[in-house]
Amino acid sequence: MSYSPADAAFAASLTASLPEGVLGPCAPRYLEEPRGRYQGQAGLLAKPNSTAEVATLLRAANAARVPVVPYGGGTGLVGGQVKPEGAAPLVISLERMSRIRAVYPQENVILAEAGAILADVQQAALEQERLFPLSLAAEGTARIGGNLATNAGGVNVLRYGNARDLCLGLEAVLPSGEIWNGLTRLRKDNTGYDLRNLLIGSEGTLGVITAAALKLSPIPAHQGVALFVVPSPEAAIALLALARDQLGEAVSAFELMHRQGLAFLAQHLPQLRQPFAQAPQWSVLIDLGLARGQDPVSALSDLFEAAVEAGLAEDGVIAQSKAQAQALWAVREQIPEANRLVGSIASHDISVPISVIPEFIRRGGEAIAALGQGDMRINCFGHLGDGNLHYNVFPAEGRSRTDYDDLRGAVKTVVHDLVQDMGGSFSAEHGVGRMKVADLQSYGDPVKLAMMQAIKQALDPRGIMNPGAVLPSLEP
Amino acid sequence: MSYSPADAAFAASLTASLPEGVLGPCAPRYLEEPRGRYQGQAGLLAKPNSTAEVATLLRAANAARVPVVPYGGGTGLVGGQVKPEGAAPLVISLERMSRIRAVYPQENVILAEAGAILADVQQAALEQERLFPLSLAAEGTARIGGNLATNAGGVNVLRYGNARDLCLGLEAVLPSGEIWNGLTRLRKDNTGYDLRNLLIGSEGTLGVITAAALKLSPIPAHQGVALFVVPSPEAAIALLALARDQLGEAVSAFELMHRQGLAFLAQHLPQLRQPFAQAPQWSVLIDLGLARGQDPVSALSDLFEAAVEAGLAEDGVIAQSKAQAQALWAVREQIPEANRLVGSIASHDISVPISVIPEFIRRGGEAIAALGQGDMRINCFGHLGDGNLHYNVFPAEGRSRTDYDDLRGAVKTVVHDLVQDMGGSFSAEHGVGRMKVADLQSYGDPVKLAMMQAIKQALDPRGIMNPGAVLPSLEP
Repeated sequence: MSYSPADAAFAASLTASLPEGVLGPCAPRYLEEPRGRYQGQAGLLAKPNSTAEVATLLRAANAARVPVVPYGGGTGLVGGQVKPEGAAPLVISLERMSRIRAVYPQENVILAEAGAILADVQQAALEQERLFPLSLAAEGTARIGGNLATNAGGVNVLRYGNARDLCLGLEAVLPSGEIWNGLTRLRKDNTGYDLRNLLIGSEGTLGVITAAALKLSPIPAHQGVALFVVPSPEAAIALLALARDQLGEAVSAFELMHRQGLAFLAQHLPQLRQPFAQAPQWSVLIDLGLARGQDPVSALSDLFEAAVEAGLAEDGVIAQSKAQAQALWAVREQIPEANRLVGSIASHDISVPISVIPEFIRRGGEAIAALGQGDMRINCFGHLGDGNLHYNVFPAEGRSRTDYDDLRGAVKTVVHDLVQDMGGSFSAEHGVGRMKVADLQSYGDPVKLAMMQAIKQALDPRGIMNPGAVLPSLEP
Repeated sequence: MSYSPADAAFAASLTASLPEGVLGPCAPRYLEEPRGRYQGQAGLLAKPNSTAEVATLLRAANAARVPVVPYGGGTGLVGGQVKPEGAAPLVISLERMSRIRAVYPQENVILAEAGAILADVQQAALEQERLFPLSLAAEGTARIGGNLATNAGGVNVLRYGNARDLCLGLEAVLPSGEIWNGLTRLRKDNTGYDLRNLLIGSEGTLGVITAAALKLSPIPAHQGVALFVVPSPEAAIALLALARDQLGEAVSAFELMHRQGLAFLAQHLPQLRQPFAQAPQWSVLIDLGLARGQDPVSALSDLFEAAVEAGLAEDGVIAQSKAQAQALWAVREQIPEANRLVGSIASHDISVPISVIPEFIRRGGEAIAALGQGDMRINCFGHLGDGNLHYNVFPAEGRSRTDYDDLRGAVKTVVHDLVQDMGGSFSAEHGVGRMKVADLQSYGDPVKLAMMQAIKQALDPRGIMNPGAVLPSLEP
């Protein structure tokens, strides 16, 4: 398959059909991604003002077979937003389509254009006394279209689900330039195939999402936050079950932390106050969002008592104020920054079935040690309630990540092989992008891969949408 | 496209590859459906014991181009389970594949084969002190594979979602006979297109679901049930928002009832005790599932007080015991039976955005009256919290439904046109099946219909899967 580049001739062919200022050269910042692993080819950058303009762009790109890269906030971690090889693409940034079209507080629904920044969607919901629960580190920059295209996760998945679970309807432009109007606010609609969920998580390879109808929730009346020291990952899992038995859906987040992460924090961010004098081997941060009339401190005290009784907790701190709650969350939230300052050999965004997490942690440690350099440090932490762990491997104290350059590939393979063996996923939250295309080919179910190829061929027969992302590039 | 029938020659071609007793003639009960509108063609009936046998059957059917009708519990209401015209099909009943393969209480996951009866899945969850929340009238007969294939709804959608929202992974056989192993128990997995949701709700037109990983929930510690009299549908919607503000996700069901339904009950099921001496114009049944430490009667009393204060409730009954709770639910649950005894001119399973429900009710009444026979009675009731109303039109007192035979089509058109105009769906819960294929063609977004056709062609190129359901039949 041979593409045409998004060049001056292509731009010229569009001058008559687009207002001035929509199409131009591609500024460097659209060709970079946060981890600096990929550098995009410089083609053209379009900043459409409307769904109709997106349609015009795609129709032209499809006719000329120009590759298209849809662009949200550019915060993706797997290179889905840059095309480093082959024909220079048309990058379509949705940044000008950032309106909140409407909020329906009685329906718990918000209609946002794809370019709306996640934090702005949250804010628009708050103004109507509603919660848009998708929450993640990049929320001040990420745009909702990109969140949906990558089915973003974050800290509230346990209670509210992934981006997929927060979307009722989509408006999208297909590669042909046709506009699919699926922007429904309905909770129940059984009229044909689920195209919404097909586009969600397809990472820009099937079309461009231009707007979404999103689910809101009531804002919990009270927040409760605690940090419990647990004797083991097994105990953490049993504690989660106990918490849900006692508190139902009120458990909003349940985050596992290992001593290694707290040690990195103490070393590199010493100003951050840690709740325990001696960093515990394993601890969990519990976040509750409670209804009116429920008292968070007494709910967490009851849980702590029952947990101690059952041998599931050894120590604990319950936040008595909003400031204390924030301080406990800060510990969890600063771990990635401490990791960055240490510098990992390899990081993994993996998930396994919740009940096998302890076995995964044990076998992972053994497998890393068996690589021959028994000195690597492991920081395993994350969204225990979702089975989603950040499993990061670091150099021995006093050594540098470059000392392990030869081992990086082997570490990654060991972890992903183990995940595969245990029925897990090598990409829990971040998607496939370009970085994990080979992983998907090697670990993915072959029947699934064939179905994906058939669907791609059916909906994007000229292969213009984000070529080389998710599925292997067809360019020579 | 011309199909071969599932006849003796086709059966003979399979004798060597299947155990005795799997393939045979099709018993009459597999050729009927609950409303008696369709009579299936008698071809062959297969009762496979395993996924591998399903694969053998589909491979042969695909090679010979024999149409296949997947069969669950046979409780569907739109004719998706019978093929009344064209080549006689191979009916594949999953009834022998009814095992619960495993329950993972710590993960809140159950693995069930597609032929497991819904009530048995609920029971297996209960035995592990977990809730499988999908609940609907046919649960004693319906099978989980069919529930997923049709994305079934029911009374707990408000809190727990549709069947789609309760499924983590699928195992399915494609028309080619290939087995897709997507039976994951993961909560987060962003590795490629969402094939699970594509199969869910596709009504057997893309493949045969053979097993599913399903989400369980903690069992709420306390149930609270009340019936509030509301001054209007507007007030009912505001009351729902108030209830969710006060109680969060604890609101499990919120059902609107109209005086007409209570009048039908009084007339045809007089033994059923009704809570109010004078049937109210509009009332809502509220069901709460509360966590430990919460008192349902005081929660509902608080809600009632606040509702009266805000002008959203005029009278109310709060169940003080399990028996009283069941008695209140019985009122709601017997309305369909009373409807059946009266005999509707036309019934509609529709949804609209929640905030336009009052306008829909008003305009619906006017449009029905404008048909010229101002005497038709309307019973509008259902899952207010999901925007899903059962909108049923009945003859005037003393007249029979056959008196309105000429009007039936017009009534249906008027209701569906109005639903379309208000951004709603002509099939909220029941699916398209064969009954609503023409509706989907006339009301469906044309770009969506084209995408559906492209996907169908890509995944079932020989068109063997449930031909004539969802998409128009290609048979002459």
